[in-house]
Amino acid sequence: MSTFTLDQLADILGKVSSESPGPEITGARPIEYAREMDITYAANQAFLKKLAEGSAGAVILPQGLDAGGLPHIRSANPEADFARLTAVFYSHKKPSGHVSPRAEVHPEAKIGTGVSIGAFAVIEKGAVLGDRCVVGSHVNIGEDVLIGPDTRIFPNVTIYPGVIIGCRVIIHSGSVIGSDGFGYARDVDENGLPVNVKKFHSGSVRIEDDVEIGALCAVDRGLAGNTRLGRGVKIDNLVQIAHSVQVGDQTVMASQVGIAGSSSVGKYGMIGGQVGIKDHVTVGDGVVLATRVGIYRNVPGGSIMAGSVPAMPHKVFLRAQSLFKRLPEILERVRRLERLVQTHRKEDI
Amino acid sequence: MSTFTLDQLADILGKVSSESPGPEITGARPIEYAREMDITYAANQAFLKKLAEGSAGAVILPQGLDAGGLPHIRSANPEADFARLTAVFYSHKKPSGHVSPRAEVHPEAKIGTGVSIGAFAVIEKGAVLGDRCVVGSHVNIGEDVLIGPDTRIFPNVTIYPGVIIGCRVIIHSGSVIGSDGFGYARDVDENGLPVNVKKFHSGSVRIEDDVEIGALCAVDRGLAGNTRLGRGVKIDNLVQIAHSVQVGDQTVMASQVGIAGSSSVGKYGMIGGQVGIKDHVTVGDGVVLATRVGIYRNVPGGSIMAGSVPAMPHKVFLRAQSLFKRLPEILERVRRLERLVQTHRKEDI
Amino acid sequence: MSTFTLDQLADILGKVSSESPGPEITGARPIEYAREMDITYAANQAFLKKLAEGSAGAVILPQGLDAGGLPHIRSANPEADFARLTAVFYSHKKPSGHVSPRAEVHPEAKIGTGVSIGAFAVIEKGAVLGDRCVVGSHVNIGEDVLIGPDTRIFPNVTIYPGVIIGCRVIIHSGSVIGSDGFGYARDVDENGLPVNVKKFHSGSVRIEDDVEIGALCAVDRGLAGNTRLGRGVKIDNLVQIAHSVQVGDQTVMASQVGIAGSSSVGKYGMIGGQVGIKDHVTVGDGVVLATRVGIYRNVPGGSIMAGSVPAMPHKVFLRAQSLFKRLPEILERVRRLERLVQTHRKEDI
Repeated sequence: MSTFTLDQLADILGKVSSESPGPEITGARPIEYAREMDITYAANQAFLKKLAEGSAGAVILPQGLDAGGLPHIRSANPEADFARLTAVFYSHKKPSGHVSPRAEVHPEAKIGTGVSIGAFAVIEKGAVLGDRCVVGSHVNIGEDVLIGPDTRIFPNVTIYPGVIIGCRVIIHSGSVIGSDGFGYARDVDENGLPVNVKKFHSGSVRIEDDVEIGALCAVDRGLAGNTRLGRGVKIDNLVQIAHSVQVGDQTVMASQVGIAGSSSVGKYGMIGGQVGIKDHVTVGDGVVLATRVGIYRNVPGGSIMAGSVPAMPHKVFLRAQSLFKRLPEILERVRRLERLVQTHRKEDI
Repeated sequence: MSTFTLDQLADILGKVSSESPGPEITGARPIEYAREMDITYAANQAFLKKLAEGSAGAVILPQGLDAGGLPHIRSANPEADFARLTAVFYSHKKPSGHVSPRAEVHPEAKIGTGVSIGAFAVIEKGAVLGDRCVVGSHVNIGEDVLIGPDTRIFPNVTIYPGVIIGCRVIIHSGSVIGSDGFGYARDVDENGLPVNVKKFHSGSVRIEDDVEIGALCAVDRGLAGNTRLGRGVKIDNLVQIAHSVQVGDQTVMASQVGIAGSSSVGKYGMIGGQVGIKDHVTVGDGVVLATRVGIYRNVPGGSIMAGSVPAMPHKVFLRAQSLFKRLPEILERVRRLERLVQTHRKEDI
Repeated sequence: MSTFTLDQLADILGKVSSESPGPEITGARPIEYAREMDITYAANQAFLKKLAEGSAGAVILPQGLDAGGLPHIRSANPEADFARLTAVFYSHKKPSGHVSPRAEVHPEAKIGTGVSIGAFAVIEKGAVLGDRCVVGSHVNIGEDVLIGPDTRIFPNVTIYPGVIIGCRVIIHSGSVIGSDGFGYARDVDENGLPVNVKKFHSGSVRIEDDVEIGALCAVDRGLAGNTRLGRGVKIDNLVQIAHSVQVGDQTVMASQVGIAGSSSVGKYGMIGGQVGIKDHVTVGDGVVLATRVGIYRNVPGGSIMAGSVPAMPHKVFLRAQSLFKRLPEILERVRRLERLVQTHRKEDI
């Protein structure tokens, strides 16, 4: 466990602390979990009650918010500065810089300086690993894969041949990058029966700097151009990125999202869990898609989209649901009533 | 293939058989599949027709149900006793108790007695494997992971550092336990553009005794406290358990469920496939969530929740769907009609 | 990069080219991506504008469509013939026919001629690999698994014991075939509290010839009979096929589909992404299920089914959604109005 004074932490953030050197801090935890030697953050007024009730030893908070006597650091974005301190306390393990003799590294692969490679990893011919990369055990890096410096790939990841990965990328266990896109043409066989003919893909995958990909994600190679995840994109677990999809910079995507072939999502988006985006759809910049929505058409930049029916008691749902498909009939009955009432009033005149 | 007399099987269940020794039984299959040397079960009256038509050699059934002349075992819970007999006939292969010389076991890992470790498995420093554990090939057990006795981990599973796993746990291939939770703070960079700052997580994952986790599940580590799966929890394939989620004892969860960060599900729940639970939601004990529902709010204990629009013919749906967003207008037209009719009736008076 | 004349490509397709030998072609790309040395296809009139604007060097198109002066090949199914040419240019790497000395092949496994096995793959006792199979690194082939000739299994796949796989099958990285089905019986423990009793499965998985399975799919073994994927079935990434599911020949299934236990899907179906099919449901032949629908009942052959509410602006949705559960009330109000108007009109008479 590392220990820092409040002053030292403020220094790391390029800020000033309320006391110097201030208390000793051994962790950074959200307000519900913070203990006496932890620093936490208060983003706004709403945090103050929990702050007073909790036992945090120090707090990051914006100008003008009352620290309630707690040692503190002022910040224009307390949550972001808090996140930076979690890296101080809980960052990934320092790379060993060691290449396991039980890894299989092809003699024609190019391994940078300070690279760590775990046991039983396989680095194929022509692959290039930038300086200080960390490749976990059982990782498979295909032929001619290019990986920038300081990228970290957790155990059991598979990278298909030709994929291009930037710097400081993180890929969690089980993910598969560059697998064949899902494309077939329907034809008939000699008996006139349907048969699916595979389209092999000439594209690859390009993952820009500072992307993080969760566990068990699939990112398929492009049909012709590359599938692309822009700089700083963050993807949760079990996400599907189909062939030729383009995701703009800094967009975040929660778990189990699926984006179908050739669709694009703009920059700075926020995509909720279990969202599905149809193929060949364009979603603009800065779009927020609520959890579980289905996107079937283009979405203009800046939109906030919702559309998933929430759960309700089973009996209530059964009745509402049975009427859903009768909506056209209900509207028709309303129209008839309107006409009748209209006629009637005219007759009155 | 093992063979038992009906009497021996009754003995295993702590029950009495209708005949002693009774017929020889070589398998336990559901009623649709049962063959002449199989035992099956009939839970209630509804099973009797299939039982008569089928060719099972013996049956487990409750007191009072007519066995139709078949050799039988009486049970208060025939399905549960049937399940117990499937373990007699089809249980996982007996552990070899052999540690492969091609596994990489850190000298500072602690390996119990009778542990089996497959080829190319990696057991990191400080990990502890309880007696009789079975670790498949290509499994990665991170630093300081604790695993109780009699736990079985299938090939290609990844356990991140610090995860705690109980006794008799089963984890199927491809699953990833303890990966980083999905947490970022939005900030702006030097050019005023959005950037995502990663929150490193101080929590871990705790999996209690008798849990079973299917293939390709992701269970993320907690933001501060542990993510926790209670005793006897059963999880199907491709399920997402986000950071800090709590699942109560004996809850079962079908495939492709996603539970978002910091939500909790009570004990004894039954969660259908493709259900999504939003973050920071509390679902009580004994709740049944129908297939594919979305949970956005707290659900009281004992509730049965539904809410997923079922598929219908494409044309019917197109018409109903186009009216869904016009519901407010339809209600408004009904209100106007009600006011008109009301006025009219008053005028009549 | 391979180079072919148009004539040579026509020959491969069993067709005739418009010029002999025709231009040299180095790739096959869809019309939006095609460059000067690429061949592309035009399926119908709608492609012609893009064809004229693009820079493809040659085109496959049906009889009667104007090639606009481009060198061409006539075809009754241009997309299918285009797909065949992608195999000429971008097919998977030729197998090495090499068994890595760092693979673990059980002496009682049977390895055909020309089989390639990657580093750290594990082939268990009694497994049979047909001629020319390609097994990637870190693949685990369980005991008694049977695999037909020319099948290709990408790295990090797990095949549980006893699975049967046909010829020319492709399985992408991370997929898990034959894991335990999800089946438990609820019982009570000695304290009267719920407990889940596991049903071990006697069935296995059978995958017919020419099936392709994407990355990170789970195909569970059958409860009693086999789970089965018919000939030519194509499955995208992150798909769940539960115990005892039957999928008919040539059906294609997009990403994140889930099919629950004992359900069946007919031949020649097209299943959109994120579709969920409940357990014990029968879907007929030639059915089209739109993206994201939920199937709760049997679907007759030839049906086109839809049913997923599309995303809409958040405010519009909030109002429509709040009325969804009030549909029974709205209908009741319409009925009351109809009765009133009816009475009124009678009084008029």
